[in-house]
Amino acid sequence: MTVSYRLSEIAAQLGGRVMGDAEVRISQIATLETANSSQISFLANSKYRAQLAGTRAGAVILAEGDADATDLPRIISDNPYAYFAKVSALLNPLPEARPGVHPGAVVGTGAKIDRTASIAATAVIGEGATIGAHSVIGEGCSIGANAVIGSRARLYPRVVIYHDCVIGDDLIAHSGAVIGADGFGIAMDQGRWIKIPQIGRVVIGNDVEIGANTTIDRGALDDTVIEDGVKLDNQIQIAHNVRIGAHTAIAGCVGIAGSTTIGSYCRIGGSAGILGHLQIADHVEIAAFTLIGKSIREPGSYSGIFPFAATKDWRKNAVHLRHLDELARRIKALEQQIESLKQAPSREPEKRKV
Amino acid sequence: MTVSYRLSEIAAQLGGRVMGDAEVRISQIATLETANSSQISFLANSKYRAQLAGTRAGAVILAEGDADATDLPRIISDNPYAYFAKVSALLNPLPEARPGVHPGAVVGTGAKIDRTASIAATAVIGEGATIGAHSVIGEGCSIGANAVIGSRARLYPRVVIYHDCVIGDDLIAHSGAVIGADGFGIAMDQGRWIKIPQIGRVVIGNDVEIGANTTIDRGALDDTVIEDGVKLDNQIQIAHNVRIGAHTAIAGCVGIAGSTTIGSYCRIGGSAGILGHLQIADHVEIAAFTLIGKSIREPGSYSGIFPFAATKDWRKNAVHLRHLDELARRIKALEQQIESLKQAPSREPEKRKV
Amino acid sequence: MTVSYRLSEIAAQLGGRVMGDAEVRISQIATLETANSSQISFLANSKYRAQLAGTRAGAVILAEGDADATDLPRIISDNPYAYFAKVSALLNPLPEARPGVHPGAVVGTGAKIDRTASIAATAVIGEGATIGAHSVIGEGCSIGANAVIGSRARLYPRVVIYHDCVIGDDLIAHSGAVIGADGFGIAMDQGRWIKIPQIGRVVIGNDVEIGANTTIDRGALDDTVIEDGVKLDNQIQIAHNVRIGAHTAIAGCVGIAGSTTIGSYCRIGGSAGILGHLQIADHVEIAAFTLIGKSIREPGSYSGIFPFAATKDWRKNAVHLRHLDELARRIKALEQQIESLKQAPSREPEKRKV
Repeated sequence: MTVSYRLSEIAAQLGGRVMGDAEVRISQIATLETANSSQISFLANSKYRAQLAGTRAGAVILAEGDADATDLPRIISDNPYAYFAKVSALLNPLPEARPGVHPGAVVGTGAKIDRTASIAATAVIGEGATIGAHSVIGEGCSIGANAVIGSRARLYPRVVIYHDCVIGDDLIAHSGAVIGADGFGIAMDQGRWIKIPQIGRVVIGNDVEIGANTTIDRGALDDTVIEDGVKLDNQIQIAHNVRIGAHTAIAGCVGIAGSTTIGSYCRIGGSAGILGHLQIADHVEIAAFTLIGKSIREPGSYSGIFPFAATKDWRKNAVHLRHLDELARRIKALEQQIESLKQAPSREPEKRKV
Repeated sequence: MTVSYRLSEIAAQLGGRVMGDAEVRISQIATLETANSSQISFLANSKYRAQLAGTRAGAVILAEGDADATDLPRIISDNPYAYFAKVSALLNPLPEARPGVHPGAVVGTGAKIDRTASIAATAVIGEGATIGAHSVIGEGCSIGANAVIGSRARLYPRVVIYHDCVIGDDLIAHSGAVIGADGFGIAMDQGRWIKIPQIGRVVIGNDVEIGANTTIDRGALDDTVIEDGVKLDNQIQIAHNVRIGAHTAIAGCVGIAGSTTIGSYCRIGGSAGILGHLQIADHVEIAAFTLIGKSIREPGSYSGIFPFAATKDWRKNAVHLRHLDELARRIKALEQQIESLKQAPSREPEKRKV
Repeated sequence: MTVSYRLSEIAAQLGGRVMGDAEVRISQIATLETANSSQISFLANSKYRAQLAGTRAGAVILAEGDADATDLPRIISDNPYAYFAKVSALLNPLPEARPGVHPGAVVGTGAKIDRTASIAATAVIGEGATIGAHSVIGEGCSIGANAVIGSRARLYPRVVIYHDCVIGDDLIAHSGAVIGADGFGIAMDQGRWIKIPQIGRVVIGNDVEIGANTTIDRGALDDTVIEDGVKLDNQIQIAHNVRIGAHTAIAGCVGIAGSTTIGSYCRIGGSAGILGHLQIADHVEIAAFTLIGKSIREPGSYSGIFPFAATKDWRKNAVHLRHLDELARRIKALEQQIESLKQAPSREPEKRKV
């Protein structure tokens, strides 16, 4: 795990322009605050430029505009934050998994497992399932019958993928994620709920990451679809027949109800919710804790957060929320009365004549 | 998996009245939009009747009032949506699980497993636990000591049921569900929290479905109770000593705090919350994202959603929420001043006399 | 499991003053309502003192002020609720786990497992991991490479701890908890998200409890830290680089975004949320369903709940939330007009002179 690279080698691999000593050796990434001389740090935002002064980092990654803000060895990049991500990936390669099926794994009849894939102990691969090249299936994972997983997937322990789901290349799925469980489909029949079989699948594109304990339900009739490059944090709930557009990123604890379609390049804040059967345009940003209750046709930023306050202040103010309509009517009545009063003086002289 | 039935055979099994060609063969369910000639579709709501014109379905399920809206072979039912659910179940039987205990399962001493039950590889059945007839325990499930599971249960992979819990017949539990973990019981004692042992159980009736990653905590002293026919979506959290009445349906991500009792036939929207020690009547409907903070004694629909808006509009409006009380006082003051002004003219002549 | 103690023996072990028959034998805890003569109950709040009259409990735990409210055998304690917790722990010892590694467990090279620890079937202990004395690792748990777990931990089935995480003594972790999954770190690079490797750990102190399906992400560069005595309910999401202060208790479904620091002795209600990069002082109480969107510097109670109402009332009132700014401006305009009108009479005589 002690990889190290010269600054020149990093730039050779990842691009960017080196300034200062290109021979300095870097073995890890760290913040400006904590970095030592064998570590590289970064400045993603010029407004924190002052932090450069105090850092003990061996090198830094800077934007063009900050190129002269330090004498430290540095790499100049258009996008220091993304560059930092790439350097970190270079310095922190994932541990190699041993190819092959661990004897403590259970593989169903007809499963097709690429010989470069790695199946851990206690993982269960269903009948007819397909596991692509260099994919790593962690311990306790359960891959359903006839499910298809592409190449270079990394499933951490205890991921469940139900039968028939189809997943592209480069999936990362964290522990406890459940993909393809039944959607919540029930019909009331003479005082009892009866179950609507969920016969669709979950279909996931390439380069998707799914957080711990996130759930994505299979479709009722058609499929639930997660397009390429979607990034899902932990504990997200995606209901049946949702479609999430490419490169949309969703923070933790969000819930998306059935049959809603979300555009591409959206960003959804933590614990937000989106009701069912809605359409959300591309490039929509939704604030944390906001419930979206109707379709959004225009890109832009949307919010619906109740502001917090000291409880005694909140209580004093919140009580009026139950009377807003009355308050609005009283304002209207006041406006009418004022209007009458304002007109009164012109009539008054006449009255006085009487 | 290629079951198929004549329309007449479907009606013979499920009731309803056939109109048009009763010999047409149906092998799958689909939406009006996507169905082909071997598929049956349905119209649950007359307002979408126009969609009938374009469908290429082989047959449709209609309400009495729509019986003449098409010439397609059709089944007329009081409740087309429920009928559709039943046809789908007929056409999509669950795969049979092989009876018996897989050699890769682990069974504790004294466990009583019906010989028609199926226990998958890597499942663990605790000491003294009981598994009823035709129940299917998926891989990686953990059934605690002395837990009792009735007949025809279907536990998908990685369900955990803690010791001593008791579950009726026909349970469906999806992956990651945790039933019977300790309730959140702590007492502050000289600056430290001490744990209150949770010695109650979870007791679940018949015909209950539990979604993926849903958690139901065991009772502190008495039991947590889920009555017959309750349907729980994914990622729901039910705290200790909650009771949920029969045939109540709860959408994803709902949280219900300790010792609350919910009536029967309630419907609770996604991400809603209910505080502890409350009583919710039968037939209560709670909107998504609504927090219920006091008991509800009357059936009906309840909401508490903060409406979303474009962020710049939301910001402009939300700032006043911290001053609602002041706004209300200013309205009151205005009303008093208007009242004074309105009375003023009658006094004015006197003042002028001075 | 049929332990029983004389009242005198309980007081000898746990303190408190016995009044009445100290020889009565107690074998279980129960509520005042349900207790029988072999059970002990408690009164934590004097306002429920009337319930003492009807109880059939064999003994009760009371505060000093209630000492004479009954003739039942009783133990007088400063903190009856905490005392009850301790008695319950005495009467309900956890089942002993057999020390040793079950042959159905999988242990990686170099793992150090104390000989008094218990590793269940289908548990997987990673390479180089350490399991302390008397710790119990349930079935299906996955302990990552080089993770360290202290003494007397109890991991219920299917807990996942990722590589390199460090956990103190006396951890309780419920099923489905995931500790150390990657934080949600992504950087946009030419239209695609690229992953930021999460190279920090999760570091957890002593005496922490973690609820079912709760997730705690590893740090991006530095560690995510949970201090001593923190109590976490189910389905909580703690993002990367969060720090939670000692003895803070958090109810179910709370989400805490990245790099936020929470003080000690805080209490956070169910489904609340805290945005990222904030500071929350010690002894802060946050109401259920409240989103904290800026730092809190002062101890105290904070809320931000939208009050629920019958849906028809809610709808009538909520519509005005989109116009609060306009309402406020109309109030201001009214105030100005009233002011003009009030000043008008004094000017009027002059005007009339013209």
